Amino acid sequence: MSVVVVGSVALDSIRTPFGECTDALGGSATYFSYSASFFTSVKLVGVVGKDFPKEHVELLKRKKVDLAGLQIVDGETFRWSGFYEYDMNEAKTLATHLNVFERFRPILPEDYKTSDCVFLANIDPDLQLDVLNQVRKPKLIAADTMNLWISTKKERIIHLCKHVHILILNDGEARQLTGHNNVIKAGRTILSWGPRYVVVKKGSHGALLFTKDKLYSVPAYPLENVFDPTGAGDTFAGGFVGYLNREKNALNDKVLHHALFYGTAMASFNVEKFSLERLKTVSKAEIEKRMKELHNMTSLVKYKM
Amino acid sequence: MSVVVVGSVALDSIRTPFGECTDALGGSATYFSYSASFFTSVKLVGVVGKDFPKEHVELLKRKKVDLAGLQIVDGETFRWSGFYEYDMNEAKTLATHLNVFERFRPILPEDYKTSDCVFLANIDPDLQLDVLNQVRKPKLIAADTMNLWISTKKERIIHLCKHVHILILNDGEARQLTGHNNVIKAGRTILSWGPRYVVVKKGSHGALLFTKDKLYSVPAYPLENVFDPTGAGDTFAGGFVGYLNREKNALNDKVLHHALFYGTAMASFNVEKFSLERLKTVSKAEIEKRMKELHNMTSLVKYKM
Repeated sequence: MSVVVVGSVALDSIRTPFGECTDALGGSATYFSYSASFFTSVKLVGVVGKDFPKEHVELLKRKKVDLAGLQIVDGETFRWSGFYEYDMNEAKTLATHLNVFERFRPILPEDYKTSDCVFLANIDPDLQLDVLNQVRKPKLIAADTMNLWISTKKERIIHLCKHVHILILNDGEARQLTGHNNVIKAGRTILSWGPRYVVVKKGSHGALLFTKDKLYSVPAYPLENVFDPTGAGDTFAGGFVGYLNREKNALNDKVLHHALFYGTAMASFNVEKFSLERLKTVSKAEIEKRMKELHNMTSLVKYKM
Repeated sequence: MSVVVVGSVALDSIRTPFGECTDALGGSATYFSYSASFFTSVKLVGVVGKDFPKEHVELLKRKKVDLAGLQIVDGETFRWSGFYEYDMNEAKTLATHLNVFERFRPILPEDYKTSDCVFLANIDPDLQLDVLNQVRKPKLIAADTMNLWISTKKERIIHLCKHVHILILNDGEARQLTGHNNVIKAGRTILSWGPRYVVVKKGSHGALLFTKDKLYSVPAYPLENVFDPTGAGDTFAGGFVGYLNREKNALNDKVLHHALFYGTAMASFNVEKFSLERLKTVSKAEIEKRMKELHNMTSLVKYKM
């Protein structure tokens, strides 16, 4: 019962209205792994340079994330720098140095190939498809994408949709990918391309889950202070896919709706501090407390007309 | 058991990406009245010119809206014209002709003064306070406001907050009024000024209800086509306040949360056509159907950790 994740492992330099950090641990595979590890075992596929600090490796190992698939190669680790202004829903990029990530070719160790769940974080859709070819019989395949690939490889993403069970993306990406400004229309259009489920993340406005005949909603967990939203989407995906993998033998709408709430709860911790600082201290009791609070704020008590 | 509403009665000319209309029935008091009349009896206070079409008067009368407080005076009816582009969350004003509304002084007929519920739509906060002085012992007072009054009379709105139980406004207005970009912080700040409850409407992202110690959320009803959002906020308020007035003798958090859902259901019909065209054909069964759908998309089934 493990989930293989392929994505970036990065060092981020970030400025928000509330502070700044330099070369902090980041990357889609990192956030996903750490978050999913609260629910299931995780096997990471990625690449870093020889400059990657050992403490970051230790942090992931302490959460029992399998790093056999993390290539450590000559050169420097992928670095991203950016900032947020008061609208924390939008990151502004200052610089992207792909470094060793530029020539990254995911190679799955032998014992990863029998994993029954795969999460393809927002890398080149051709690499995502390449990873899928290496896994034998995955029961659950989820993928994310991003504006860069929608601009340059839209057809490959649509092709990828035929091979994944779940596509997870944000509202701006859903609009860009489908050409529909209306998010409901965008979500249903993606669904028609193949995935069984589509999740549209809306930042501080929560998320929507589309199934073939239903729609589920969750608001964002209410926070008065969002410190740094970097990684929120991947932390959400970690909670969502991690919970689904744990419960996948009884996968139904109820489980999916709970997964949507777990993703939301996990993302809410992530945005409270830089990097994985807040996630590092989260307890299972804190996660359950936020689940209960989200439940109370959304669910009508004894609904009867 | 009636609610007195004071606000505008207008003739709107609107262009959206899907069509246009000229001199269609609009105005905050109109939308509120029609929507609230599904739940409670409504007494309208407003003003129109002698040009106001009789068919509009008849439409409201058919819904048993009391029009004794509608002044019909020499001059032309308030007219607004505007348009929406693809982001239907934002109206762009082309022209506002206040006409007879400019010198409007609300005068409550004698039998309005004993009403136990008042809704002060988005008129000048000094007029809102003036109306409150005319009502004897209202049990439930709700008010809306808008960017114009926040720019010009912020202190009077803050003063009004001491005299109302519920303030209803949209997220942009909540930010402008409090100076907080974060909507959670903005809502709680307004709450600290006096109202027992604050509702922040977020257009296609739903609405939040703040109480002294809780927060409730509802998503927008999922629509693939939003035809014209004009009046959605007042239609929401009509459903919300109308339901609360019906249930006000047992007002608790459960009732408030249901009211939030009823407001959302009513607004969802309004945006499907111009003016009151869709509301005119809505049945109670259709309202209950959307309530059920909203319930199913938000409420975790048999939630248990």
